Amino acid sequence: MSTFYTRYRERRERIRSVLCVGLDPDPDQLPGGYDKTDAGLLQHLEDIIESTADVALAYKPNAAFFESRGAGGWGMLHATIEKIRKAAPEALVILDAKRGDLGNTASHYAKAVFDELNADAVTLNPYMGRESLEPFLERSDRCSFVLCLTSNTGARDLQYHGDPPLFERVARLCHEWNQQTNNLGLVVGATRKGSELQRVRELAPDLPFLVPGVGRQGGDLDSVMEMAGKDVLVNSSRSILFASHKRENLVESARQEAQSLLDSMQKYLS
Amino acid sequence: MSTFYTRYRERRERIRSVLCVGLDPDPDQLPGGYDKTDAGLLQHLEDIIESTADVALAYKPNAAFFESRGAGGWGMLHATIEKIRKAAPEALVILDAKRGDLGNTASHYAKAVFDELNADAVTLNPYMGRESLEPFLERSDRCSFVLCLTSNTGARDLQYHGDPPLFERVARLCHEWNQQTNNLGLVVGATRKGSELQRVRELAPDLPFLVPGVGRQGGDLDSVMEMAGKDVLVNSSRSILFASHKRENLVESARQEAQSLLDSMQKYLS
Repeated sequence: MSTFYTRYRERRERIRSVLCVGLDPDPDQLPGGYDKTDAGLLQHLEDIIESTADVALAYKPNAAFFESRGAGGWGMLHATIEKIRKAAPEALVILDAKRGDLGNTASHYAKAVFDELNADAVTLNPYMGRESLEPFLERSDRCSFVLCLTSNTGARDLQYHGDPPLFERVARLCHEWNQQTNNLGLVVGATRKGSELQRVRELAPDLPFLVPGVGRQGGDLDSVMEMAGKDVLVNSSRSILFASHKRENLVESARQEAQSLLDSMQKYLS
Repeated sequence: MSTFYTRYRERRERIRSVLCVGLDPDPDQLPGGYDKTDAGLLQHLEDIIESTADVALAYKPNAAFFESRGAGGWGMLHATIEKIRKAAPEALVILDAKRGDLGNTASHYAKAVFDELNADAVTLNPYMGRESLEPFLERSDRCSFVLCLTSNTGARDLQYHGDPPLFERVARLCHEWNQQTNNLGLVVGATRKGSELQRVRELAPDLPFLVPGVGRQGGDLDSVMEMAGKDVLVNSSRSILFASHKRENLVESARQEAQSLLDSMQKYLS
C-alpha cells in the first residue's frame, strides 16, 4: 500500500492545493436552516465536503466535537469519513485527536483511529515520549502528526521551557525517529512572527507540517508558506465551515473561502 | 454540590482506602469463560466492580479500550459508569483520557467527559498550557489530574528536559493554578527510585496524586505512600482485572488482590 507521504504528494501536485478543511460539528455556530441534531450537523459537514471536494488535499475531523455527542457522535464520525471517501476518494483523512498514552493503551488508541475509524493520519501528543508513539509509528501506510508548537498564549507555559526550548527538542526528536519510519509529521501553529516556524523547519526539514490557525484564527498564509515551504497542510476550519450564517448561502460562501485560500497558496506550489 | 476533594476525603476516611481500580476492557487478556464481545467485556468489568465495590475509593475506566470498539464501546463505557454508580454510589469515577486541546475543542472534551459521560474526574495532558485546562478548571465540582511525571523509560524524552526539568515546572504551575480553583490533581508515576515523587510532593503539597503502575507494572506501594503521603489514589489495573485466567476464580482472586493492596495501604491511613 502506498504511504501517506506518497498519497499526500500525488494529490498536492494534481490539484495544486495544500488545503486541509477542519470539520468541527459545532451546534453553537451551525448556520440557520440546519437542525441542531446529529442528522443536521452531519448534513452540514456533508455540504461542506461536497463544496470543497476538488480543492481539499485533506479533511481533519475534530474528535472532541463528535465525542461530546456520545455514541451518536461516534456514528456521525463514521458517516463523515464515509462521505469524504465517496466525494473525494483521494483526499486524506486526519483525525485530530491529540492522543498520547503508553503500552497497551497506546495500541488501543492506534486501533481506534486506524482500524475502527480507518483514518489516514492522526494528531498525537508527545509528552510521554517515544513509547507513546510506537504503535502509531509501526503503521507504515499511515501518518502521525506530533504536537510541536502551538500559537496560543499558553504555549509558553511548557513549549518554551528550557534552552533550547522544548518545542525544538520535539522537532529534533521527531526528525530523528522519522529516519526509520517515514511516517511522522508535526503540528506547528502559525505564530505571528513566524520565526519559530522557520526554526522548526530547519530542525525537521523533511516532515510535513500540519498548520492550524490560518483563516479566522488570524495566521498569515503567506508567511506560513514562505517559512515552512510546500510540505505543509494548511488547515482552515471555522472560516470555511461557518462561511455563512444561512444554509442557503453556505455552499457558495464556503467554496469562495476555500478558493480564496487556494489562490493564495498556488503561487508557492508551482 | 460537594467538591471532588470533599468526596475523596470522606470516602477515604470511611473505607480507609486509596485504591483506584483501573478498568481496561482488553479482549486479549480476558479470562477464559467470558465472551470476547462487548457484552462479555462488560460482564467482566461488572464482576470486577462487584467484587471491589467496598474497597475501591475510585474506578478509572481507560478510554482507549472503549474507543477501539467504536460506538458499541461508547455504550459499554456508559454501562460501566452506570454499574459503578449502582454498586458503589460513593466511589469516584476518573476517566483516563489524557485529553488536551484549545478553545472550543477543549470545551467539547470537557462536555464529553463531564456531561455526556458524567465522570467525576479526568486525566489531562498539559502540553498546550493553561488554556487547554480552562474549561475543566471551571468545573468546581469535578477534578482534573494533569500528567506530570510518568515511569516509562521514554519519560526522559520530554519530561526531564530543561533545568529544572519539565515535570517540576508542571508541578509548580498546577500548584499555582489550583490556588484559585481547588480542583486539580497530578498524575505521577511510581518510579523505582521514588525521589522524583518526593520532589513533586514538595512542589505541590496539596494536590492529590493519581499514581498508576502499582501492582503488575512493578511500582512499590510502600515507597509511594512514604514519598507522596496519603493524598493519593493508587491505581491498579491488570493485577486486579486479570487476577485469574479463569472466570470461575476471578471474583475471588480479584478480591484477594485488592485486599492485599488495601492491607499494605492501611498502615499509612490511620
